[in-house]
Amino acid sequence: MNFASILEAIADEVRPSLGDGKVADYIPALARVPASQFGIAVRTTDGREVCAGDASTPFSIQSISKVFTLSLAMQQLGDGLWDRIGREPSGDPFNSLVQLEHEQGKPRNPFINAGAIVVADRLVSQFANPKEAVRQFVSSLCEEEVGFDEEVARSEAATGFRNIALANFIKSFGKLDNPVADVLDLYFHQCALSLSCVQLARACAYLCHDGRNPLCDQPVLTDRQARRVNALMLTCGTYDAAGEFAFRIGLPSKSGVGGGIIAVLPDRLTVCVWSPALGPSGNSVAGMRALELFVEKTKLSVF
Amino acid sequence: MNFASILEAIADEVRPSLGDGKVADYIPALARVPASQFGIAVRTTDGREVCAGDASTPFSIQSISKVFTLSLAMQQLGDGLWDRIGREPSGDPFNSLVQLEHEQGKPRNPFINAGAIVVADRLVSQFANPKEAVRQFVSSLCEEEVGFDEEVARSEAATGFRNIALANFIKSFGKLDNPVADVLDLYFHQCALSLSCVQLARACAYLCHDGRNPLCDQPVLTDRQARRVNALMLTCGTYDAAGEFAFRIGLPSKSGVGGGIIAVLPDRLTVCVWSPALGPSGNSVAGMRALELFVEKTKLSVF
Amino acid sequence: MNFASILEAIADEVRPSLGDGKVADYIPALARVPASQFGIAVRTTDGREVCAGDASTPFSIQSISKVFTLSLAMQQLGDGLWDRIGREPSGDPFNSLVQLEHEQGKPRNPFINAGAIVVADRLVSQFANPKEAVRQFVSSLCEEEVGFDEEVARSEAATGFRNIALANFIKSFGKLDNPVADVLDLYFHQCALSLSCVQLARACAYLCHDGRNPLCDQPVLTDRQARRVNALMLTCGTYDAAGEFAFRIGLPSKSGVGGGIIAVLPDRLTVCVWSPALGPSGNSVAGMRALELFVEKTKLSVF
Amino acid sequence: MNFASILEAIADEVRPSLGDGKVADYIPALARVPASQFGIAVRTTDGREVCAGDASTPFSIQSISKVFTLSLAMQQLGDGLWDRIGREPSGDPFNSLVQLEHEQGKPRNPFINAGAIVVADRLVSQFANPKEAVRQFVSSLCEEEVGFDEEVARSEAATGFRNIALANFIKSFGKLDNPVADVLDLYFHQCALSLSCVQLARACAYLCHDGRNPLCDQPVLTDRQARRVNALMLTCGTYDAAGEFAFRIGLPSKSGVGGGIIAVLPDRLTVCVWSPALGPSGNSVAGMRALELFVEKTKLSVF
Repeated sequence: MNFASILEAIADEVRPSLGDGKVADYIPALARVPASQFGIAVRTTDGREVCAGDASTPFSIQSISKVFTLSLAMQQLGDGLWDRIGREPSGDPFNSLVQLEHEQGKPRNPFINAGAIVVADRLVSQFANPKEAVRQFVSSLCEEEVGFDEEVARSEAATGFRNIALANFIKSFGKLDNPVADVLDLYFHQCALSLSCVQLARACAYLCHDGRNPLCDQPVLTDRQARRVNALMLTCGTYDAAGEFAFRIGLPSKSGVGGGIIAVLPDRLTVCVWSPALGPSGNSVAGMRALELFVEKTKLSVF
Repeated sequence: MNFASILEAIADEVRPSLGDGKVADYIPALARVPASQFGIAVRTTDGREVCAGDASTPFSIQSISKVFTLSLAMQQLGDGLWDRIGREPSGDPFNSLVQLEHEQGKPRNPFINAGAIVVADRLVSQFANPKEAVRQFVSSLCEEEVGFDEEVARSEAATGFRNIALANFIKSFGKLDNPVADVLDLYFHQCALSLSCVQLARACAYLCHDGRNPLCDQPVLTDRQARRVNALMLTCGTYDAAGEFAFRIGLPSKSGVGGGIIAVLPDRLTVCVWSPALGPSGNSVAGMRALELFVEKTKLSVF
Repeated sequence: MNFASILEAIADEVRPSLGDGKVADYIPALARVPASQFGIAVRTTDGREVCAGDASTPFSIQSISKVFTLSLAMQQLGDGLWDRIGREPSGDPFNSLVQLEHEQGKPRNPFINAGAIVVADRLVSQFANPKEAVRQFVSSLCEEEVGFDEEVARSEAATGFRNIALANFIKSFGKLDNPVADVLDLYFHQCALSLSCVQLARACAYLCHDGRNPLCDQPVLTDRQARRVNALMLTCGTYDAAGEFAFRIGLPSKSGVGGGIIAVLPDRLTVCVWSPALGPSGNSVAGMRALELFVEKTKLSVF
Repeated sequence: MNFASILEAIADEVRPSLGDGKVADYIPALARVPASQFGIAVRTTDGREVCAGDASTPFSIQSISKVFTLSLAMQQLGDGLWDRIGREPSGDPFNSLVQLEHEQGKPRNPFINAGAIVVADRLVSQFANPKEAVRQFVSSLCEEEVGFDEEVARSEAATGFRNIALANFIKSFGKLDNPVADVLDLYFHQCALSLSCVQLARACAYLCHDGRNPLCDQPVLTDRQARRVNALMLTCGTYDAAGEFAFRIGLPSKSGVGGGIIAVLPDRLTVCVWSPALGPSGNSVAGMRALELFVEKTKLSVF
């Protein structure tokens, strides 16, 4: 398949409507990202990397980081991780407290904020320097040093009242082992990781390589674990639009409010899109459109 | 792949624990079904049909019927169907009224009871004799005459207070066009269709044949529509255990309280399992276990 | 106190804004009631009856009937009544299903629709002809024959999908003893009773006479029961505006969508107001204003 | 009325069951209070003070403090206070976050924790030293210097994850003007005020004296404001047992998890009871029983 021409065609098709939607503006460092950027990168299991548009521009990966912290926690803890996190779609806005109260502090899945905070707590218990552990883990996945945008991390900490509320709420149920401040320090930093589409498509390659990092041929997860991450991405990866993603796109995906979306076609390829303007569900408008076009043009989806 | 020996091995493995769980007992006709039965049938896209256990015993398909009524409504109405039904997982017990109130009478998806009632309303508008239209549609899919278990239909009508409540509740929002009694008459009958595992595996073949019925080579749905039904089955098909199904099994599936589960591997095969005893989420215990074993042994899943 | 001049002053003050709000229009028989009518009647424990405006015009008492059916059920069943009904404010719109689901079919209090339906079920069990029993009970309270507006009752039955949903929902939890149709026949009729302000002020006199009907000096309830009905009216009597009523008016009150409100000053007087146009909480706009003026001018409230 | 003998009789009647229930144990300073203590004090509008049992033992007033901070905020801000707080019963456990989310950070009433936190925020804006302002306000009401139990305040701060969550949650809706830490410092201190039954009965005397402090004859609130505080206590003062309190006791009341309850009979008297062991709704078991006996014996209630 000629991915190069397909990606160029997609970039051409989405260009006229770039900027439709609304760039996340809850912190200045995100608000000032120009809305009209767009990048797309594909990495196939036979090692090809193809891209178009602003695919090498680093952006704030935000919630896409939840794929990496989940994977690292699964690697470290195995099934014990699931004692404190469910695996069901939430059916609710992504940071709702309601369900958390109803279920006594056990978040519905690791991709809502509450769930990612619980994952962060487990990593804080696991590593002497959890921020550095996560940074190194992601760096090793894409074989390049990646870093935190400290301005973003500081802003998230200064204004993230809802996440502070979430963490204290979970703590009130006795379901965080570490001090709230330590857990949130990791959480706000993981969201502030900066990567480009090309880097993200590469970093997620283990999800379509039976759990192995193809760059260094090292195991990241077991085959089964990798497939389960894919399953979670499909059912829970895109806030309360997971059903819509499955219906219209049909690829396991994880999005972030920085405008990035990573998608996986198991055993075949990863594709990462990025465009900062978001739709009402918190997902990149042009990114979703680009993935829809990708599936239309390639006939590749899990369904 | 030697499906015959795989299915026999699965039947052997689940046999010792048959009857674990609880047969649906809200109506006598279901309550008296012997718990220890088990059947499994596979139909591949190259036309092979393989089965084991009680795969030819007809059972009450219950909510599996929602796949057929949804497909018939999609065929008849196209995208107009989605004006009154969402496509998101519900995150709630399957017949909850809460979400329905929150969303002003628009059910979250066509596989919860509320959604299936709305689908039934659309079919009542579409056909002079909607029960017969559904029965003929399913019969044509498996190229055998199938029928309603009238005792089951009568019992559902006499005791289905919660579904009567649901239908009246949706009606109160102005979102049923037809009289509640007519809509429920179709709904209670579709749930009372009797098919065997072999028949169901065959009847769902269009879901892995680009929407075409392979027996008569007639289109049932467009290719895209068929894939979208698969997507809905994966995200919403198994009550509030859809995440667990995706995580552990990884196949688009639809279950019913009669103990049947139909699963689809797009472009490859359909597999139907049946065993009457249900787990806490309303899904067949042995059926789920059998599907898990099937995926383990064949390495076939969408992830 | 010169109640005659006070009531005239109130009628003068509310007159300019009569019709502000919206007459209930879910059934034609209510929708065609002229919005600009206003009546007020006071009955004191020393037997004085004073009124102003359209105080002798009968209107559909709607939910005010819940005071009478509750009282009749308390008289007949004593504390056994409370097995199936709570006594807490609902904090939710008056006919919400959410709380009912959360609390397994036990309505929060007897003044929300769900609670009144449960009360109706108990009365259906208690009387051979429950509609006639309720009609006679209310007639005896005001020593005049009162009757049902059969057109209203029929319309409620034909369009009351939400109440039908509620009743079936409660039935699904096993918490109605009688057929839904029988329970709703009573419920729709009690709401269709027609009384005037003067009649209602008289009919509720037992609530400020230690539970005795002062007209015939017969016990209706025990002293304690009567005071408890007052307590329930104060905390639960005015849909989800009970806090606002207590804060601004401070009298136990029960309102109906026909535009009537009955209020009680224990040991002193009853006051009934009526004006058909309703505010957003479903209470008569002019009626609430009139009660507020009444309390301001007389300095009479329970607080 | 011979209140002295009535209070002695009540003390005698509750003595055998003292300790039934469970002393609040979420912080050590509360957990070690002996469960079998009981005190009761009455102050009438003609200036009599009568008491029995441990009525002079200071205890942690906890949520009773919300009456004082509300009154101080009403005094300072008038109706402007209500922009950010509702006046409806919550129908939910006292510290639920659900309703807060549904209503976008506007607490339902000033007596749930969320509402009291919003009141505290307004006081932090109003006073240079808000803790001292509250302490002096309460001291002036009972004409004795009262103080904070700093151990209790520290423990609340160290373990009050749910209140920290609440405050951050409200802050996330933009509905706290001051830093969360400042607001909670006041909140945790007001809960740690120590007063005895005698002091509390005296401190609340303004609520049955047209808003005037009878000790110094100074206005605390307007007459109308005082009556409105009473109305709020009746509808919202006792967590999710407000309906039950109204039904069984019928006095405006405010309780705290320290085991105290203050009740008001408007224009007549205040009564304060205290016993540390709590029932399931978070109210003192012996305290509720004592108030019920008080109403039975005196026939005094607002209904």
